[in-house]
Amino acid sequence: MPSRIHAHVPAPGLLARARLLAAPTLGASVVRELERITGRPVEQGSSSAASEEPFVYVGASLPDALRSGPLVWFHSVNAGTDALLSAGPWPPGVLLTRTVGRMGERIAQYVLAWVLADCQSVPEFAAQHARAEWRRIPSELVSGETAVIYGTGRIGSAVAALLRGCGIRTVGVGRGARTAPAGFDRVVGADDDAQPLAEARWVVSTLPLTPATAGFFGADRFAGMGGATFINVGRGATVDMRALEAGLHSGAVGGAVLDVLPEEPAAPGDRCWQLPRTVITSHSAGITADEDIVTDFAACWEAMAQGRLPGTAVDVRRGY
Amino acid sequence: MPSRIHAHVPAPGLLARARLLAAPTLGASVVRELERITGRPVEQGSSSAASEEPFVYVGASLPDALRSGPLVWFHSVNAGTDALLSAGPWPPGVLLTRTVGRMGERIAQYVLAWVLADCQSVPEFAAQHARAEWRRIPSELVSGETAVIYGTGRIGSAVAALLRGCGIRTVGVGRGARTAPAGFDRVVGADDDAQPLAEARWVVSTLPLTPATAGFFGADRFAGMGGATFINVGRGATVDMRALEAGLHSGAVGGAVLDVLPEEPAAPGDRCWQLPRTVITSHSAGITADEDIVTDFAACWEAMAQGRLPGTAVDVRRGY
Repeated sequence: MPSRIHAHVPAPGLLARARLLAAPTLGASVVRELERITGRPVEQGSSSAASEEPFVYVGASLPDALRSGPLVWFHSVNAGTDALLSAGPWPPGVLLTRTVGRMGERIAQYVLAWVLADCQSVPEFAAQHARAEWRRIPSELVSGETAVIYGTGRIGSAVAALLRGCGIRTVGVGRGARTAPAGFDRVVGADDDAQPLAEARWVVSTLPLTPATAGFFGADRFAGMGGATFINVGRGATVDMRALEAGLHSGAVGGAVLDVLPEEPAAPGDRCWQLPRTVITSHSAGITADEDIVTDFAACWEAMAQGRLPGTAVDVRRGY
Repeated sequence: MPSRIHAHVPAPGLLARARLLAAPTLGASVVRELERITGRPVEQGSSSAASEEPFVYVGASLPDALRSGPLVWFHSVNAGTDALLSAGPWPPGVLLTRTVGRMGERIAQYVLAWVLADCQSVPEFAAQHARAEWRRIPSELVSGETAVIYGTGRIGSAVAALLRGCGIRTVGVGRGARTAPAGFDRVVGADDDAQPLAEARWVVSTLPLTPATAGFFGADRFAGMGGATFINVGRGATVDMRALEAGLHSGAVGGAVLDVLPEEPAAPGDRCWQLPRTVITSHSAGITADEDIVTDFAACWEAMAQGRLPGTAVDVRRGY
């Protein structure tokens, strides 16, 4: 986590007497747990349409009717908060926290699954089996190959640590750090990624969507890859899809595994389905489990009871 | 490796003057490396049909014409030597070594690939993509689940170590050992596997084929599984296929990934292709690379020059 984050803990008295409102889509088991943690009823649906008293909200988006009310804390049930923050100006001074859950672990296992599926021809064997075809396919060892991972935060670090455990060399691309975060063999800045990109067997993006990362993966980066497989578990709009397509056609990009797209869901006729050597996984890599929401909410509640800023607090000016 | 193995190092003088014969199928680059290591020419094909002088042989099988000759050492280009040993009585006193290469690493990556493919729905996403279908599929975390691994030798240990690195609990089934070999949380004997089998999410077999392991996975073991996915990277004939089929139909076996079959290759009409929730991978998990043959041959040569028994020596009475 960054050391300086622009966010503030609500006053303890305010939190103690705040109502607890939640999105109608929140499951019954989550609601029960939130009531247990906070010792007050959860109000869902029309009863929460407006509030004169201080309130906490748990959900994916902030209902318009509540925007001007005395909101003290919003807990997002998702890890990505770009949709939430781009829906309108964030109410000044309101604390935003997010559900990270076991997201790092979950996304790391997704990435490793596709790295190994690539080397062990998992989709090819499944297809051969369906045709009752016996044909040997040699495997490729991952050990000693290089993965370049964009984003050196908790998700990027979790991906790097898991890949490194399989003997993969991990190069992070992130803000300059004196010492590489856990999981990385080394870290370079975004302006120094040309050589790692050329050497990489895999390029993994965990980047959030911010004004600085929109279209980040463009013609230059894709053309500079030396046949790497591009795996995107960050945000779709960080990728210029036409540039990716050109890279796949030229061979600079060896293949792509896209969990996210600039426009989701992809319609059946979308040209993304026609990209060569590509698999699209329907934004499934980091699906939040109910237990993740509860665990992270509880950690926030506990931190604030002790006057600490929760570890999952979002700097709304930066966007993550 | 077992501490006591019935095999003997050839006398140094014998090895120094032995001819070097090799299977005609051995590639040119391997032949060049063997010549470099031993400082003598490699004789392939008809010229090696008979030999009156002491000779070393490198290949997959022992030609009948050479069986009665003064063979001093046979280096197998494969890891499994069951086919070699069952082709006829092994010439008494002849050292047999095998190519293990990076087999442990290779097979471990195969197993982890299929473990993660299962949890991350890799084949399902590939199929959805082919239909241009956007549909989210939640993933399953591997952490905390149990894998039972049959065989606690170098391949079993390599599998266990890689799985444990992903947070999977690893139970080995092998000969009693005071301390669990590297990679295993614990090891039980083959008579004490009922509880681990019932709890396992994955059951992995690395067993060689010997008189003791033929049909080892039968009705009792499959019926005793609690929905585990069965992954066989050992030998096909260790499995009673009818019992596996019954286990898959009852649900005791949740799925199967079979690299090996009792009869290979499987014909297009073989009923193995019709097993539910099964993928057959055409004996590809441990394909030996040329560099593996050379590396392991060189290690044997070096060990024997120092009067040591090579680490890849096979106890021909035991079969591995």
